[in-house]
Amino acid sequence: MQENNFKLNPKSLKTAVTRVEKDKIVTRGYNQRDLIEKIRFSDMVFLILKGRVPSLKESKIFNYVLVSFCDHGVTPPSTQTARLITSSGSPINSAIAGALLSFGNKHAGAIEKAMELYQSKIDSIHLINDRGIDNKQIASLAIEIYNEYVVKGKKIPGFGHRYHDVDPRADKLMEIAVDNGYLGPHIKLALALQDLVYSKKHIKLNVDGANAAILSDLGFDPELGTGVFMIGRLPGLIAHSYEERMDEDEFRRFCDLDDVEYMG
Amino acid sequence: MQENNFKLNPKSLKTAVTRVEKDKIVTRGYNQRDLIEKIRFSDMVFLILKGRVPSLKESKIFNYVLVSFCDHGVTPPSTQTARLITSSGSPINSAIAGALLSFGNKHAGAIEKAMELYQSKIDSIHLINDRGIDNKQIASLAIEIYNEYVVKGKKIPGFGHRYHDVDPRADKLMEIAVDNGYLGPHIKLALALQDLVYSKKHIKLNVDGANAAILSDLGFDPELGTGVFMIGRLPGLIAHSYEERMDEDEFRRFCDLDDVEYMG
Amino acid sequence: MQENNFKLNPKSLKTAVTRVEKDKIVTRGYNQRDLIEKIRFSDMVFLILKGRVPSLKESKIFNYVLVSFCDHGVTPPSTQTARLITSSGSPINSAIAGALLSFGNKHAGAIEKAMELYQSKIDSIHLINDRGIDNKQIASLAIEIYNEYVVKGKKIPGFGHRYHDVDPRADKLMEIAVDNGYLGPHIKLALALQDLVYSKKHIKLNVDGANAAILSDLGFDPELGTGVFMIGRLPGLIAHSYEERMDEDEFRRFCDLDDVEYMG
Amino acid sequence: MQENNFKLNPKSLKTAVTRVEKDKIVTRGYNQRDLIEKIRFSDMVFLILKGRVPSLKESKIFNYVLVSFCDHGVTPPSTQTARLITSSGSPINSAIAGALLSFGNKHAGAIEKAMELYQSKIDSIHLINDRGIDNKQIASLAIEIYNEYVVKGKKIPGFGHRYHDVDPRADKLMEIAVDNGYLGPHIKLALALQDLVYSKKHIKLNVDGANAAILSDLGFDPELGTGVFMIGRLPGLIAHSYEERMDEDEFRRFCDLDDVEYMG
Repeated sequence: MQENNFKLNPKSLKTAVTRVEKDKIVTRGYNQRDLIEKIRFSDMVFLILKGRVPSLKESKIFNYVLVSFCDHGVTPPSTQTARLITSSGSPINSAIAGALLSFGNKHAGAIEKAMELYQSKIDSIHLINDRGIDNKQIASLAIEIYNEYVVKGKKIPGFGHRYHDVDPRADKLMEIAVDNGYLGPHIKLALALQDLVYSKKHIKLNVDGANAAILSDLGFDPELGTGVFMIGRLPGLIAHSYEERMDEDEFRRFCDLDDVEYMG
Repeated sequence: MQENNFKLNPKSLKTAVTRVEKDKIVTRGYNQRDLIEKIRFSDMVFLILKGRVPSLKESKIFNYVLVSFCDHGVTPPSTQTARLITSSGSPINSAIAGALLSFGNKHAGAIEKAMELYQSKIDSIHLINDRGIDNKQIASLAIEIYNEYVVKGKKIPGFGHRYHDVDPRADKLMEIAVDNGYLGPHIKLALALQDLVYSKKHIKLNVDGANAAILSDLGFDPELGTGVFMIGRLPGLIAHSYEERMDEDEFRRFCDLDDVEYMG
Repeated sequence: MQENNFKLNPKSLKTAVTRVEKDKIVTRGYNQRDLIEKIRFSDMVFLILKGRVPSLKESKIFNYVLVSFCDHGVTPPSTQTARLITSSGSPINSAIAGALLSFGNKHAGAIEKAMELYQSKIDSIHLINDRGIDNKQIASLAIEIYNEYVVKGKKIPGFGHRYHDVDPRADKLMEIAVDNGYLGPHIKLALALQDLVYSKKHIKLNVDGANAAILSDLGFDPELGTGVFMIGRLPGLIAHSYEERMDEDEFRRFCDLDDVEYMG
Repeated sequence: MQENNFKLNPKSLKTAVTRVEKDKIVTRGYNQRDLIEKIRFSDMVFLILKGRVPSLKESKIFNYVLVSFCDHGVTPPSTQTARLITSSGSPINSAIAGALLSFGNKHAGAIEKAMELYQSKIDSIHLINDRGIDNKQIASLAIEIYNEYVVKGKKIPGFGHRYHDVDPRADKLMEIAVDNGYLGPHIKLALALQDLVYSKKHIKLNVDGANAAILSDLGFDPELGTGVFMIGRLPGLIAHSYEERMDEDEFRRFCDLDDVEYMG
């Protein structure tokens, strides 16, 4: 069955990401030989996702975003999944694949929902008026969101954290944005919303909410939010899987029989 | 990019599992219209894996195997993985995929290793001598395995259980085999090995070891061992994922911060 | 780090699926020793998912459902994913996990959507009137669905097939239901809807639509639809992964460079 | 079942990766507030995997490695898996998880095997002699490997490419190493081996082989090889999944029925 090659019809696969020729690989228009020598990895991420090299300012901001996602210890379900699977003796790519599968609606979903929320609100103004958005408009959008969510008892995506009152990553990201004047319309909206929600409910932006605003100002489509999060978090997941493999040589026993309550 | 069909070259895909024509589906030579009406699901599993319908005796035995794999409560890493991923809000197929990834060397791997062990030993005799294997030969193979594993401090695949002294599934399967005379050479070898190991070490066959012998007598390739296990276990994993989804409406908090010891 | 056991707090895990004690395993109230000896595998699936043993009639019908899902050759993305991953040299559980991940909205999602549709329509009548549903009511529900979907240009879940005009599995399942009088309200609704859609659009029920009706009459929650589908399809996926592994010994080359069109 | 928290026993989870306290997150000894502001993402990856910040030279080299893994178009099975799963309508994390599962023995496995090979050879000399390794020793190790693999008809891990005669990434990486004098013992060994294999067989290092040598000189454990590869490749996989989702709005038909040859 050697000829069973799953070969594809000529020209049946189209892509704008990378052109591969014999002995030559060109990604987003750049020869990989040049990219290897000259581009920072974080800029490479921006380039491959957005199709263009970031400006110096974009490069700095995008680097903050990626670093801020790096790890949250053993507490998230994704990290625990990576460790559980590793402990069963499966290879590291299986452990990491399982971890990614734990980025469900309730775990990593908030970033895309927050990006959609901010972008739909900002876009609603752009549609009416293409001059710059003023602070009064931002304030009224924040009130609009507050009324649509908090007043109706719905959780605002990107706010609150199970372990922190002040998520230090969100706090730092917003501090950097303010100090450096990185205040595009989506960040302004996130900050205005935070002021409102904090004054009434004592809840602040979390790392997803802060990055949703930043990535929106950088022009990222909400559909790429989880992707950027995965890129940032992958190194942490690998560190945990590796730690589990190295420090643990037996098949763990995850519970004792009397840890379990039978309800049948 | 509508024509981007990943289409395959004519005749580039070959398969002996199922022929699909317009309005007709034929699996392992049987029209699916007939299979739907006439075959038991457990026989369908046998048919699609082995390429032929089982005999009545094989059908009964294979059904025991599948049922015996159904569930072991919340204790295995695979079940805990299914529940962790479900709890994050991911869809059920993601939760089950993650669970399958937990069938690593230390979890589900034993069945294939035990099949390889029994089959290589039995085959070593067939090579020399194609008459029936007598009990003396079986006994000496059991001693051979005992010396290669227990004497050298290596764990024999398919023996011992983290929670049970007598794995009730293995015990029942072997009881049925003995009572009904289902005593092919691999089951005989497993039983002889169990006698030896139990007399010296007080350790018995587990569900993997018992089924490894049965599946070997049924003519299954070791490479299909984990596959049969997955088929048997899938319903249990789905029941757990469903239970988790139904009974749990919030994003779980899997640990408190002081549950974790930082070693850095 | 031997004590690092991920152990769970006493009584922190609750389940009604299986109680595990030392040397004893009880699933849905039945000792597994008894289940192994006495229950058919298809009934075991019903028991573990629904919490009770099926009636004789339910047992027969549920077996048809499971068999009907067994395989559709190499055409579905899930099967191709299983083969791609196998071909890379990954273990079979990874290949099958990847295949399950291909059961997205457009592939296996139809069964749950069709179950929700049929059940919400039938429930809407039960709410008003708890006598038996008469054929007039069924006919008007079918028209309601037709108007909500076809008239508005939306695809009805569970109708039409990419390769078949008449999906032979759906056709056979409905034939069995009619011949044996298995005509609960959801099957009646599916049949009435099919009459209407076929007369106007020449499109018939597919295997997902037929099984959605049958599973609804059997009392299955839509959230279990994909689960039942996965159980039925798993043996086929394993057969394909095994075939790929056995018949192919080199790392396949999946396309030639000139098969790809670069659009950048 | 609100108390069903899968909570872990006090101190049952140990980790040296990240300490999480209320409102404070410390990774590998550094406050994440500081890391977000000051560290490059590629250095963050090094830090979390190795437990220390890289030197300036290490930082530059590690960045080359990460960028060199970014993408190889639609040709690898992992990329095709990501696109297949995306095309079924599954979420992006499922598509990427499936792609990672395609990093099997034949796809991404070479990097770890090459790292083990180089490190075991270099370690064998260190054991005897802890002075610097001289070029004569390197040359004799290269011959040793050549004899163990090529002479015996075995493929050397990290050599040869299905599409390229000269893998431009490996070529560029080795050029940079030579030009800048980044010539640790593992890179020296890889270069000596390449000279030998190329002179006899006209086969050169591929991206896995080149990076295996570089990562070995950077002090990475072979068990982390696939992890580093996954980190480098993830952005490319996400770009492909996103492209597939954006440019394709229907459920693809992956083959025509007459593309398939039935062998039954």
